[in-house]
Amino acid sequence: MIITKAERDAVYKTIYSRRDTRGEFKPDPIPDDVIMRILDSAHHAPSVGFMQPWDFIIVQNPDIKKQIKDGFEEAHKEAAEMFHGERQEMYKSFKLEGIMEAPMGICVTCDRSRTGDAVIGRTANPEMDLYSSVCAVQTLWLAARAENLGVGWVSIIDHDLLKEILAIPQHIIPIAYLCIGYVTHFHDKPELEKAGWLPRTPVESLIHHDQWGDQPE
Amino acid sequence: MIITKAERDAVYKTIYSRRDTRGEFKPDPIPDDVIMRILDSAHHAPSVGFMQPWDFIIVQNPDIKKQIKDGFEEAHKEAAEMFHGERQEMYKSFKLEGIMEAPMGICVTCDRSRTGDAVIGRTANPEMDLYSSVCAVQTLWLAARAENLGVGWVSIIDHDLLKEILAIPQHIIPIAYLCIGYVTHFHDKPELEKAGWLPRTPVESLIHHDQWGDQPE
Repeated sequence: MIITKAERDAVYKTIYSRRDTRGEFKPDPIPDDVIMRILDSAHHAPSVGFMQPWDFIIVQNPDIKKQIKDGFEEAHKEAAEMFHGERQEMYKSFKLEGIMEAPMGICVTCDRSRTGDAVIGRTANPEMDLYSSVCAVQTLWLAARAENLGVGWVSIIDHDLLKEILAIPQHIIPIAYLCIGYVTHFHDKPELEKAGWLPRTPVESLIHHDQWGDQPE
Repeated sequence: MIITKAERDAVYKTIYSRRDTRGEFKPDPIPDDVIMRILDSAHHAPSVGFMQPWDFIIVQNPDIKKQIKDGFEEAHKEAAEMFHGERQEMYKSFKLEGIMEAPMGICVTCDRSRTGDAVIGRTANPEMDLYSSVCAVQTLWLAARAENLGVGWVSIIDHDLLKEILAIPQHIIPIAYLCIGYVTHFHDKPELEKAGWLPRTPVESLIHHDQWGDQPE
């Protein structure tokens, strides 16, 4: 199956305009067919040994969202102590999640025992199944952007607490808690770049040839 | 920026027709501008705290490819011992990499110390930077598919050996060694699914509401 130049450009447009959304969520509900398209896309991410180790917990109950928000606040307070001076002030000023504002949360997990002990491709590198679930997250994110939905990854929360709140069994690993919803707008650049927290690294400086350190001219 | 329905469908076409390529590589060289588009796309993956922890090592030297192939063979032999009976025979029959046939390899890494100890979003979950590099891998993969290039993830290799072969510094983590190139064709389904190794899980069985186990009707 051939992808045309116009289709290729649509993929690039989606990749470059994807953002981590925190402050721009609108409460508008997401139609069921849209959510199903996004989740089915995520389900077509690559997985080691065709393991498909992911599950998707759709969170809409406001009480559960509130517990997740409280969990974020606790971890966020602890995190602030790890920055100092001006950087700490800057850290505290950032809006880093939209848990309550987004109409929906989606927790993506990894079931490491789903297909037994021996998994093709996981034998030398046991982390591969976790990475498969991360590929599902990024696929979900791009599919959502293609539906003009914003997604924000809430990583500032204790995952044991997240498991407790979402009744996730002990052997299942939470990979990501995502906020998802329609947005007022997408920022033209990542917010941390815009705020001067860190600059965009020139991509050329990240490319090596044949071995590490052998950089192009 | 609005994504149109036609653009959305192009993204879905790309997601659904992406495959892990092993046996269909053609030797045709990949133009520099194509590789740069793919790497720049990967560089626009989400990263925790805008850390951009990835590097990309482009491997074209046949001697280095041969060392990687040897590393695969060793890990592959060990892996075969983890399967038994009919499954072992089946495992041995699969072609799981195209290291020598693909005109290019790309190793994607993670520099965990790139932006200092305190990283926004990595405070509660230290694995987040590794996951950022995985997001870069999946973004690269989809961009490559949009350029009609096949990609295969070689995870059956010892990562310490991979570091040695590619002269990767001690503190840098290899995330993926990818084979990339034009292809004779893309399989319509994942090869492990076609071969009857594992079936595609119905996506509905992976969706929960508000808490784990609360499944839709």
